[in-house]
Amino acid sequence: MSPDKILIERLQKDINKINLFLEKNLTSRIPLILEINQHILLAGGKRLRALLFILSSRLCGTSGQRTYYFSSIFEYLHAASLLHDDVIDNAALRRGKASANTVWGNSTSVLAGDFLLAKSFSLALETQSFKLLSVLSRASTRMAEGMVLELIHNRNLNLSEDIYREILINKTAILISAACQTGAIWGKATLEEEDALARYGLELGVAFQLIDDLLDYTSTKKFLGKPVGSDFREGKITLPLIYTLKVCSEKDKNKISGMSKKNQLEDKDLQFLLGIIQSHGGFEYTRKNALEAKEKAKEFLLRFKSNQNRQTLIDMADFVVERKN
Amino acid sequence: MSPDKILIERLQKDINKINLFLEKNLTSRIPLILEINQHILLAGGKRLRALLFILSSRLCGTSGQRTYYFSSIFEYLHAASLLHDDVIDNAALRRGKASANTVWGNSTSVLAGDFLLAKSFSLALETQSFKLLSVLSRASTRMAEGMVLELIHNRNLNLSEDIYREILINKTAILISAACQTGAIWGKATLEEEDALARYGLELGVAFQLIDDLLDYTSTKKFLGKPVGSDFREGKITLPLIYTLKVCSEKDKNKISGMSKKNQLEDKDLQFLLGIIQSHGGFEYTRKNALEAKEKAKEFLLRFKSNQNRQTLIDMADFVVERKN
Repeated sequence: MSPDKILIERLQKDINKINLFLEKNLTSRIPLILEINQHILLAGGKRLRALLFILSSRLCGTSGQRTYYFSSIFEYLHAASLLHDDVIDNAALRRGKASANTVWGNSTSVLAGDFLLAKSFSLALETQSFKLLSVLSRASTRMAEGMVLELIHNRNLNLSEDIYREILINKTAILISAACQTGAIWGKATLEEEDALARYGLELGVAFQLIDDLLDYTSTKKFLGKPVGSDFREGKITLPLIYTLKVCSEKDKNKISGMSKKNQLEDKDLQFLLGIIQSHGGFEYTRKNALEAKEKAKEFLLRFKSNQNRQTLIDMADFVVERKN
Repeated sequence: MSPDKILIERLQKDINKINLFLEKNLTSRIPLILEINQHILLAGGKRLRALLFILSSRLCGTSGQRTYYFSSIFEYLHAASLLHDDVIDNAALRRGKASANTVWGNSTSVLAGDFLLAKSFSLALETQSFKLLSVLSRASTRMAEGMVLELIHNRNLNLSEDIYREILINKTAILISAACQTGAIWGKATLEEEDALARYGLELGVAFQLIDDLLDYTSTKKFLGKPVGSDFREGKITLPLIYTLKVCSEKDKNKISGMSKKNQLEDKDLQFLLGIIQSHGGFEYTRKNALEAKEKAKEFLLRFKSNQNRQTLIDMADFVVERKN
């Protein structure tokens, strides 16, 4: 059995409980809201953020039903951002299924996202921890900022690696970091432990998004649940391409620029793009960056006692980089 | 001078301070977010929710800079819902200016709304009151539910008065009630006072939206800042029409049904609509309902000592019903 499968098997009980509360916590007087949110929440997903909250809390010594209960906070917040993101990207598919905006339209998706955002805060309030709430509300603010920054740089082939990183940290890594940090807070961690887990989460989040951006080019439609090259089609300029554009010839750069303005990306265009990124080492560079972030993430765990809980968080970091979808 | 103008003059100092904090509290690392939010926040607006928070708090004995500071919570939450609402309605104008979605596109408007929602919660957290936060998060949830319910019944000419009321309460009145209730909480009110102000706000909110729905038909483009009949064009079936459809002939009902399916509403269609609602008493019925709600609102103030603060809240109720835009 692959290491991925072993990890998932070890976490299956946790995942089952996460899923149980995801459904249980989702109540609304409006059946349509339940329908859309079940569509987005129960369509799969790795439950990465919920798991990190639970595992971080457990590492600091707290577990139990309430921890699973509160893990919904992060999946709701994440699903809300997916709903709004799909509206923005006009995405047709999400996890191999028709996206909510395709089925119910943009308006309903926007409102269903707003509902999940509010639900997430309602749940978080029940922790009665101002500290936890403040980490969470800062994360929400920064997610919106990250997504706006990404939008501003849509189709910007001159996007710098620095701004790419700022987008990636805000739109993805901050929430993953918040899941770990609030897990520590809920687990009554010391300030040092809380800080270590926040930093672990941030680096893990960076690695996660780098691999996401890599897989968007190198995986298959079957694994991704959406077409290969979706980011490029949506005008999202990510690290494999940013690196390539810095080192390729002016002629190739012009060709890529022409492709980015087309409404439809033809198969031969995609093949050219994959070839040029591959030959200039854009994929390798992105993977190297992800591996570095993952190793940094692991280092922050060194201040914790070596035990099964710590090992699982180490394995999570490996999983994030080695996953196939 | 008209009573409206006298009230606004009396409140001008409060409004100035509200506006001061609206701008001061709005910080973001992303200039575009500031630009959009200034566009929606500083384009005018009655500051009804912020004023009600301040006046309710003052009625219960608390005033000062912090109260003005926290009044931004409600204007941010309200502006967030306007941004998302304009995306949903595909509205071209808001308060006589191009709407944010027209200037910056739907995607940026959705995200700017998300940002304001998160900002609103960040501010509210600083009150360090779980009670206040819980009123606010429940209000956000119900606003999203109300807006979805409205969307479900878009162009539904068989919409019942009961469901119309449910939409109106959730999408509008709950937030206005929350502004009053949290004002009471911030003002360290007794439970009875808090309850009275919550109920005052709810009835005031009902009256406010009823008059909004009335003015959409009976006011002018200049006063409204958008074309007369926008609700009907957007498929929003409101009380003046609901009442008329119940009492008019089958032939007229069919004609209205035909009009509601058209992409463009011609001037003569609008004139016919206004005429038929007028002659069947739909406007009068709506106004009567608003007046009743306003009187109920005032009754909830009777448990407070008669003084200038109470009088201002009474005048606010009159203002809501007598306003021209």
